[in-house]
Amino acid sequence: MRLVREKIILGIDPGTTFMGYGVLKIADNKPSLMAMGIIDLRKYGDHYLKLRRIFERVSGIIESYLPDEMAIEAPFYGKNVQSMLKLGRAQGVAMAAALRRDIPITEYAPLKIKMSITGNGQASKEQVSDMLQRLLHIPKEELLPQLDATDGLAAAYCHFLQMGRPHLENAYHDWKDFIAKNPGKVKGG
Amino acid sequence: MRLVREKIILGIDPGTTFMGYGVLKIADNKPSLMAMGIIDLRKYGDHYLKLRRIFERVSGIIESYLPDEMAIEAPFYGKNVQSMLKLGRAQGVAMAAALRRDIPITEYAPLKIKMSITGNGQASKEQVSDMLQRLLHIPKEELLPQLDATDGLAAAYCHFLQMGRPHLENAYHDWKDFIAKNPGKVKGG
Repeated sequence: MRLVREKIILGIDPGTTFMGYGVLKIADNKPSLMAMGIIDLRKYGDHYLKLRRIFERVSGIIESYLPDEMAIEAPFYGKNVQSMLKLGRAQGVAMAAALRRDIPITEYAPLKIKMSITGNGQASKEQVSDMLQRLLHIPKEELLPQLDATDGLAAAYCHFLQMGRPHLENAYHDWKDFIAKNPGKVKGG
Repeated sequence: MRLVREKIILGIDPGTTFMGYGVLKIADNKPSLMAMGIIDLRKYGDHYLKLRRIFERVSGIIESYLPDEMAIEAPFYGKNVQSMLKLGRAQGVAMAAALRRDIPITEYAPLKIKMSITGNGQASKEQVSDMLQRLLHIPKEELLPQLDATDGLAAAYCHFLQMGRPHLENAYHDWKDFIAKNPGKVKGG
């Protein structure tokens, strides 16, 4: 198994009102915060200006931090087909910015993200933010004003946990270790 | 009123199975076919590969033909929220390719496109293709094998008609002309 020494994950939560993002650096399996922020799209009345702004900002973040992977919060349900079409477009332009740089994308449902960070799929934004603050040692005063940005960061952290899981839970250090963990799988074990 | 001497319109019909496109050159208000084609996305099993292929191909078409405007066939309804999210993503990546080149986008509902070309919003693909063939003097053998591509070309043609309409129907050459066309609007006219 290849051990990942350093990896940069960009997490985004694309919406048509706000887009939150967070950049995590994983070094020797330890995550640290590189950047986080929010793109306020309310001032762009025109739908295309919003889409263009998302594409430009995500492209800019990618140029600045050179992420290896992108994690995206992606709800798979919605109020109606209209809002899903708009959400799909916002996701599409954000994805285009990553795809043209060959950055692999992984999607996570909001429930999955909350669950993996707080242990509760129904956790509030504040609970997710509190947990991220502790996990990443971020001063509270830095995180709170950017509450809407934490969804992007949460997506990145969720992706880090998913990456780590096979390594932490299923990795075997040697044959003895394998036998110890899988007594039934080895004949005569 | 500014008369448009030459303009290039890219029309696309983005889907997640096929994407049709057509490029029209408008010179002195006369449209002619520059290019048309279809991107077959069936061979890309992975959703992200499809999105990436759409972005790359639309970007490539834009680099080749340098369109001034983009017209897009955009249904605003759909079977379910799932399919609308996917369609929104396909539209989003195609739009990103245009937006990053400052190309204005106009959307047309399928019914509007069929109506403006054939006079019948319920026209079949074949009827739209037949009409385009006659309007643009395209040999039948060129158009028929690309039936799925005609939706993109049809969007471009619809946009040409929309551009032309204010000029053709509402333009007044002089004050006398205005009075003649609007007898009730001029006091004592």
